[in-house]
Amino acid sequence: MVPCCPPITAGELSQADAERMAAMFKALSDPVRLRLFSRVASHPGGEACVCDISDVGVSQPTVSHHLKKLREAGLLTSERRGTWVYYQVAPSVLAAMSAMLDLRT
Amino acid sequence: MVPCCPPITAGELSQADAERMAAMFKALSDPVRLRLFSRVASHPGGEACVCDISDVGVSQPTVSHHLKKLREAGLLTSERRGTWVYYQVAPSVLAAMSAMLDLRT
Repeated sequence: MVPCCPPITAGELSQADAERMAAMFKALSDPVRLRLFSRVASHPGGEACVCDISDVGVSQPTVSHHLKKLREAGLLTSERRGTWVYYQVAPSVLAAMSAMLDLRT
Repeated sequence: MVPCCPPITAGELSQADAERMAAMFKALSDPVRLRLFSRVASHPGGEACVCDISDVGVSQPTVSHHLKKLREAGLLTSERRGTWVYYQVAPSVLAAMSAMLDLRT
């Protein structure tokens, strides 16, 4: 996924850019999903085994659903190694979201 | 509204912080709402009259609904002056969201 967009102060977002960015913000719009995401992001190297992050007080299928949404939005990537799936933060996508909201730029 | 939180790489978000931040991300999770927000943010001084930003291809009640959601989430403030309502970006809330997603911090 190619990150977008110019800072939000630079001008009105196009419809296409608005749809792409809204989908990313939507991925972080659920508290459980945001906590799961923060668990991956705060692991050393921005990577975590699903076995290390799943005890957030919801069922395993719910955890899987949230991780899938984060992956589909491009905020996480994943890789299976042996028994476990590992999740990695996608730094370029996060940088795009952060830069878009940074009024200093 | 007091902005929160530490960078997402700093550790797991508390439930309370996750709920607050998820509500802010939710406010930007709709393409029309995000475009309206970008219209205010890109106006000189980060302020715009509702009369200048409403032609985004949806009805006036829908525009009002979206602006209310942005206000409730703390991303916009508003002020009536004479006939019109003016909307202002809340810089501290945007800065909190941006900083949270900034992996360099």
